[in-house]
Amino acid sequence: MVSIIDEEVKSITREILEDYTRGRDIDKMDDLFDQLDKDMIIQIIQKLLKIIYPGYYRDKTYKIYDVNNYLSLLIEDAMYNLNKQIAFVLKYENHREGKKEEGTETRAREKTVAFFQKIPQIRAFLETDLQAAFDGDPAAYSKDEVIFAYPGMLAITVYRLAHELYLMNVPLIPRIMTEYAHDRTGIDIHPGASIGKYFFIDHGTGIVIGETTVIGDNVKIYQGVTLGALSTRGGQKLRNVRRHPTIGDNVTIYSGTSILGGETKIGKDVVIGSNAFITKSIPEGTKVTIKGQELIYKYGNTEMMQAMELE
Amino acid sequence: MVSIIDEEVKSITREILEDYTRGRDIDKMDDLFDQLDKDMIIQIIQKLLKIIYPGYYRDKTYKIYDVNNYLSLLIEDAMYNLNKQIAFVLKYENHREGKKEEGTETRAREKTVAFFQKIPQIRAFLETDLQAAFDGDPAAYSKDEVIFAYPGMLAITVYRLAHELYLMNVPLIPRIMTEYAHDRTGIDIHPGASIGKYFFIDHGTGIVIGETTVIGDNVKIYQGVTLGALSTRGGQKLRNVRRHPTIGDNVTIYSGTSILGGETKIGKDVVIGSNAFITKSIPEGTKVTIKGQELIYKYGNTEMMQAMELE
Amino acid sequence: MVSIIDEEVKSITREILEDYTRGRDIDKMDDLFDQLDKDMIIQIIQKLLKIIYPGYYRDKTYKIYDVNNYLSLLIEDAMYNLNKQIAFVLKYENHREGKKEEGTETRAREKTVAFFQKIPQIRAFLETDLQAAFDGDPAAYSKDEVIFAYPGMLAITVYRLAHELYLMNVPLIPRIMTEYAHDRTGIDIHPGASIGKYFFIDHGTGIVIGETTVIGDNVKIYQGVTLGALSTRGGQKLRNVRRHPTIGDNVTIYSGTSILGGETKIGKDVVIGSNAFITKSIPEGTKVTIKGQELIYKYGNTEMMQAMELE
Repeated sequence: MVSIIDEEVKSITREILEDYTRGRDIDKMDDLFDQLDKDMIIQIIQKLLKIIYPGYYRDKTYKIYDVNNYLSLLIEDAMYNLNKQIAFVLKYENHREGKKEEGTETRAREKTVAFFQKIPQIRAFLETDLQAAFDGDPAAYSKDEVIFAYPGMLAITVYRLAHELYLMNVPLIPRIMTEYAHDRTGIDIHPGASIGKYFFIDHGTGIVIGETTVIGDNVKIYQGVTLGALSTRGGQKLRNVRRHPTIGDNVTIYSGTSILGGETKIGKDVVIGSNAFITKSIPEGTKVTIKGQELIYKYGNTEMMQAMELE
Repeated sequence: MVSIIDEEVKSITREILEDYTRGRDIDKMDDLFDQLDKDMIIQIIQKLLKIIYPGYYRDKTYKIYDVNNYLSLLIEDAMYNLNKQIAFVLKYENHREGKKEEGTETRAREKTVAFFQKIPQIRAFLETDLQAAFDGDPAAYSKDEVIFAYPGMLAITVYRLAHELYLMNVPLIPRIMTEYAHDRTGIDIHPGASIGKYFFIDHGTGIVIGETTVIGDNVKIYQGVTLGALSTRGGQKLRNVRRHPTIGDNVTIYSGTSILGGETKIGKDVVIGSNAFITKSIPEGTKVTIKGQELIYKYGNTEMMQAMELE
Repeated sequence: MVSIIDEEVKSITREILEDYTRGRDIDKMDDLFDQLDKDMIIQIIQKLLKIIYPGYYRDKTYKIYDVNNYLSLLIEDAMYNLNKQIAFVLKYENHREGKKEEGTETRAREKTVAFFQKIPQIRAFLETDLQAAFDGDPAAYSKDEVIFAYPGMLAITVYRLAHELYLMNVPLIPRIMTEYAHDRTGIDIHPGASIGKYFFIDHGTGIVIGETTVIGDNVKIYQGVTLGALSTRGGQKLRNVRRHPTIGDNVTIYSGTSILGGETKIGKDVVIGSNAFITKSIPEGTKVTIKGQELIYKYGNTEMMQAMELE
């Protein structure tokens, strides 16, 4: 090693190795953790994207003579690897809950098979989301552009995949999947949320959709919208309690609006303007805007106050 | 395959292959789509960054004896690959619009050459953006830090490149380019927007700048600012209509403010405070803030209401 | 080159090479810049994550027989490479300030050693942050999920590492490190900020924490919170001036709130609701919410105005 004295390296290594022995959560080095592989889960997502959108995300590096052969290999590969990761997390859960390890391999296989059987249904939903994005955005040049370049489309696709694993009680993997999409897009959809057909997210950065949110069909939301909990001061005591809102069919929510609370129900056909803060239910068909901000205009020596009316 | 029964894999593969034959948009597998290559477009962006900032993004893996030879090779490589991708999207557009494929290769070559001829002009603009970032941020240690680490600088660079391709009517590629920057930075600038010199974005996460926005020289915007459309309920009918605002020279827009609408014009030298929601034009030289929020302070048993005055 | 005429490539290359000779900042090609390597800094961060969380981020590609051997090699590798990058930036700083290059190698080695000696202390802080995240979020399935999938945990980890280098006056590298986390998570923490134990960030997209911010122990902040400067119009004149707020122990700040200014002090045990805009100090124990927005409800022909009360 250039310019660092060997003895210093040895001494630091000794201190850090020693630090691993304190028995804290951060020090955990169980065999199980050697094996759950976040990078592999991201690779599986990328394979699933190629399976979902075979004409768009296809491998470009080699000439494909027989599309069906290529896709069969891809599906087999994704199944094999997902099965392996699911088996790891089921063993991890047994270990964590002090259960015996009976039947883990079988349960992993059943969940993997059930997940892949859902793919045609997931694709049917995504076709509706694609249509909603194209219809909803004047800047969309073509549906191909939506698939290639819209972050909302990526986030919804990964969410719809992760949600199926969440429903099958697969631990850890669904959240790692949606966090990959959050990292890529700034859109944070918990895999536990339930979302209907024709869902459109425009721009999307800063969107948060909480674990127990229920969203109907044909809903449109913009950047910076939070569908959240009113208070999480209860912490772990609130697990499995309904904490997030219900959004009806055909609802539009403009940018920066927060809708909070497990008892908050937004009726169908509601439109909510930008920057609203909603903690109570809203009846169907209502259009909600915040009362115009009073703006203070200063220009030279004069000053006037003027209510801006929205639209 | 370990632990998944062969018959299950075969049956699932059959179902998914069958699902591809439904003729929906999601099933499209035209030859053209084999070829437009999103990963290659991202590689081209990375090569363009090395061409734009030769001292900063240079390849570190091998010793460069002759900088000019290295840069010549890099330019040739980027031209070759961009030309190829442009030819694909022009063929795609012909195909989509049912046009004959005459002259596609020639048009691709002309557009590629015209794009690279713009690079010195793009670099001249970026030098002004670099100056604006350094002058505008007390936390900037040096201009080198701005190039190495400021997400706004990356987003503006990719936008300025993509905008030239947008002006040449190259489909798909410009949007894929700006979405790469959006993914990296949380800053969503549509390649159709028009932006003057000395443009500075600080922090930047959550910024949205719509397709028909026009921004003057020496403008400064902060995280969470939207320059957007008032309503997009018209959907595809609004294509090519002016939907986004005009921002004059020397305007500063603080964090979280939304300025919406194609008829909204912000005059030169205007300063707009945080969290404003602006849908009407503002005359030049005006300083706009929202009227102080009334805050409710609870402390033990007492409660008082107090208007916070800004600044 | 297919379909681009050689002469055009040569002519464009000539123009761009010529453009590099204008002596602007963007044209800088000092020897020093050949060597600071942003990609290597990102690799060092990834090695540091493996050192910090040895059970979670461990290399999965090969079977590890002896964990201690593996970790020793990893530490030595990270020290070697960080030492090299620190030496480059110290030389860069000498060059920039016109100082002689005496002792740069020694100073780089001292800083590298001092940084690695801090790792046990950084890990002790991160254990508290992990506890705070698990306690604070009902959706957290396990602490393992927090380490694997919570963007706040990644952003805080990278910040705590970068902050130590910042305190040692290492230029450029700390900011490149926190920008890597900003890119991944949408959470922008300046390495100069000072942050206590048990720090929890939920969701996190859009958070900005400025250079001179001071945060106490057991603080919880949500997506879209800005801890910023009141005005940066002073630009470079404000370097090294206290511009960002002080946040006391046990403070909770809900989503979308901005707290601005170097003289703004938030007392301990304060809770601040969503979307507040705070530019004045708040005494300890206070609960602050914004006065309920007036919402305008339109439903058929009727229209009513109704103050929403928060909670």
